[in-house]
Amino acid sequence: MPYSKFNDDDLKFLRQLCGEDRVTARDQVGEDFCHDELGGTRARPDAHVRALSTEEVSQIMRHASERRIPVTVRGSGTGLVGGAVPLEGGILLDLSGMNHFLELDEKNMTLTLEPGVLLMDIGKYVEGYGLFYPPDPGEKTATIGGNISTNAGGMRAVKYGVTRDYVRALEIVLPSGEVIELGGKVVKNSSGYALKDLIVGSEGTLGVVTRATLRLIPLPKFKISLLVPFPDLRSAITTVPAVIRSSSVPTAVEFMEREVILAAEKFQARKFPDNSADAYLLLTFDGASQQEIDLACESAARTCLDAGALDVFISDTDERNESIWSARGAFLEAIKASTTEMDECDVVVPRSRVADFVIFSHELQRKHAVRIRSFGHAGDGNLHIYVLRDDLDEAAWKRTLEATFADLYAKARELRGQVSGEHGIGFAKRPYLDESLAEPVRALMRGIKSVFDPQGILNPHKVVE
Amino acid sequence: MPYSKFNDDDLKFLRQLCGEDRVTARDQVGEDFCHDELGGTRARPDAHVRALSTEEVSQIMRHASERRIPVTVRGSGTGLVGGAVPLEGGILLDLSGMNHFLELDEKNMTLTLEPGVLLMDIGKYVEGYGLFYPPDPGEKTATIGGNISTNAGGMRAVKYGVTRDYVRALEIVLPSGEVIELGGKVVKNSSGYALKDLIVGSEGTLGVVTRATLRLIPLPKFKISLLVPFPDLRSAITTVPAVIRSSSVPTAVEFMEREVILAAEKFQARKFPDNSADAYLLLTFDGASQQEIDLACESAARTCLDAGALDVFISDTDERNESIWSARGAFLEAIKASTTEMDECDVVVPRSRVADFVIFSHELQRKHAVRIRSFGHAGDGNLHIYVLRDDLDEAAWKRTLEATFADLYAKARELRGQVSGEHGIGFAKRPYLDESLAEPVRALMRGIKSVFDPQGILNPHKVVE
Repeated sequence: MPYSKFNDDDLKFLRQLCGEDRVTARDQVGEDFCHDELGGTRARPDAHVRALSTEEVSQIMRHASERRIPVTVRGSGTGLVGGAVPLEGGILLDLSGMNHFLELDEKNMTLTLEPGVLLMDIGKYVEGYGLFYPPDPGEKTATIGGNISTNAGGMRAVKYGVTRDYVRALEIVLPSGEVIELGGKVVKNSSGYALKDLIVGSEGTLGVVTRATLRLIPLPKFKISLLVPFPDLRSAITTVPAVIRSSSVPTAVEFMEREVILAAEKFQARKFPDNSADAYLLLTFDGASQQEIDLACESAARTCLDAGALDVFISDTDERNESIWSARGAFLEAIKASTTEMDECDVVVPRSRVADFVIFSHELQRKHAVRIRSFGHAGDGNLHIYVLRDDLDEAAWKRTLEATFADLYAKARELRGQVSGEHGIGFAKRPYLDESLAEPVRALMRGIKSVFDPQGILNPHKVVE
Repeated sequence: MPYSKFNDDDLKFLRQLCGEDRVTARDQVGEDFCHDELGGTRARPDAHVRALSTEEVSQIMRHASERRIPVTVRGSGTGLVGGAVPLEGGILLDLSGMNHFLELDEKNMTLTLEPGVLLMDIGKYVEGYGLFYPPDPGEKTATIGGNISTNAGGMRAVKYGVTRDYVRALEIVLPSGEVIELGGKVVKNSSGYALKDLIVGSEGTLGVVTRATLRLIPLPKFKISLLVPFPDLRSAITTVPAVIRSSSVPTAVEFMEREVILAAEKFQARKFPDNSADAYLLLTFDGASQQEIDLACESAARTCLDAGALDVFISDTDERNESIWSARGAFLEAIKASTTEMDECDVVVPRSRVADFVIFSHELQRKHAVRIRSFGHAGDGNLHIYVLRDDLDEAAWKRTLEATFADLYAKARELRGQVSGEHGIGFAKRPYLDESLAEPVRALMRGIKSVFDPQGILNPHKVVE
């Protein structure tokens, strides 16, 4: 379906609506707005518009719909799959300026806010009220709108679930410009199809999120971490199911290997509490009382030692927590700094298959003569496997990456995993999603896309074609 | 869109596929299969078929699709909104015989089962493994397939969420007969549109659930209940938000009034621990240790007493728990036994508006000269308001019920609630759903229905037209 060419009248419309200073066009659009954190996928929009209200978004969508001009929504641009890249040009609808908290409702424990609020600001804001927003994706400068659009996960999913579990209500601008509300400040809902849940994770292809109401929970007052060294990766990871069953569910269960820890030490120029073992589990527990988390820790420590752990380091001081978690937070940057370029596979596999998958990915290093690094959420089966370019030339890198990814995604399918645990599909992972889904499922997805966006103007070429 | 008339060839097809003894036709179909627990909505199918496998369901759907014959899926028939009544005749596809546990996966903490397994059998089965399936709708003889189709809630939603939160994967037969799988044994998933979440709560209008994989959690080993008398309903209910914020989130928070307790005492011919107060909160806490739940109870008790509670009865013996919870379990039957006929409104409102709604419903008794009884989930805002017929004649009953319902649903809209918290829309609540949703939202629902079921053969006239 061909789009209309963005013309001077379209530009005039946008400038009249939003003012000169919130609209840039063509060559004036900054380089930063032509890509996201994936880097490799780039495209220039015809216009970059910073919208500040639902009304503006609605008018832009109505105009785009009438004129059949593509619209791609963007928050902070921290995505990893090219999801916010305007592949067909048109309008890049930047919502980062819609960044206000609208209401904190203490009785219903909800926070209503605009989509451009940054994740890192939500935590700080609600903690002041003794409340907690559990989803905790690594990228704290992401917007909540971006988190909603990818159904972002993060480390605390083991205990608390993912973004979709914390979205109570959404205000959506449809491609037609119509504004609808889905859900409400209600805990249960069996009132028709789950449109709110469908919008979450749809990566800006079905509608534009202009307001969200999030569910909050009481802030757990006590927190403790355990750093547990194991002789090898397999014994570390295969202990996880038993730990999760042993008592209270941990808030997070991360695995890490010595080589990634060494990279983080070098990158941060500071020591990790221990780097003598091949592999580690990092467990966190939180709760409403010290007794509760002490009990959980004891039980988890016993389970780990029974399974062959070399030691258990308890981290209950701010200083030690900071040293562990800042290293954990630096893994991605440290790996990135160790090479020239990299790409990532964000599969999720059943918890029982994590060790198989990570060990398989190690073996691919020899097969494809490439460095591969990984860390991830052992508790929820969501892995981050990084393929590093190092000194490969363009052609070799492309070939190697394709071959390695093909093996990784095939293995994930074999283990009955899914293509993406939290980063989404965007443009970069579409071939792998297509391969992983049966044709009738793809047909349903295409059908749903057509229902919401019959002209295909919203975020073209993303998720489904 | 007109359906084909079910004929002798169709009957022959079904009998060849499933055998004579699993197919009854026309007048031979038992009365029980012409309605659900709502009673008032009745229709006779042309054929009642007990399918025993996905393959049979697939062949039946393919045949029905080719012939354009309506198909309505049925489990135990415990629904309250006419959702399983075959309004256009055709095939009543009874899945109650597909009632096998298929796999309990301890490492991934999942249970895979057929849709006809009864809810009450799931709890017993998984507890044997130290595991727990939290959703707890009142009707224990419902099938898990029925629970999935209405996104059933229950009392534990405050702490644990609803059915959708515990469905990891589904096998679905589409109206065309194609079999698809959605989701997997994974904790996170950002791999395309949330079709699994869309099927949950779609009340048998989009596809037929033939297998489900449920998420389990570690069984909380300790449990305690508090029965808290208050001088009046408003002071009881307005205490709830503070209790939920005070420490650990309670597993359940129910409110009950003296007149319903008296009805239950009469119905059960046994005493409730206390009936001296106008209103009660019933709180339950569960957890991994005695200390943890003791702390939560202390904190909740303090909050209630500060808010004007008359006393706090701790229930930590099996005997007392049994006396309280068996009364709670008998409320519905007790109210039913006290009148000739009744109908129910299952709205959900924000937690902060529960008192307003219940008191409003009391006032309607005078306005419409009708008895109204209620109890419900004060913790999650899901109310069950029963309008009782008593000695009204048919015409007066119909008129009174309509007028009372109109007021109740209008009030729920005013308080920004939703039409159904857990029972679903089915046929009976469709007018109220239609009123509560904006036209663009209804249009999206109709569009989604057409994508899954272009001929409209699955469960006609339910949820959307």
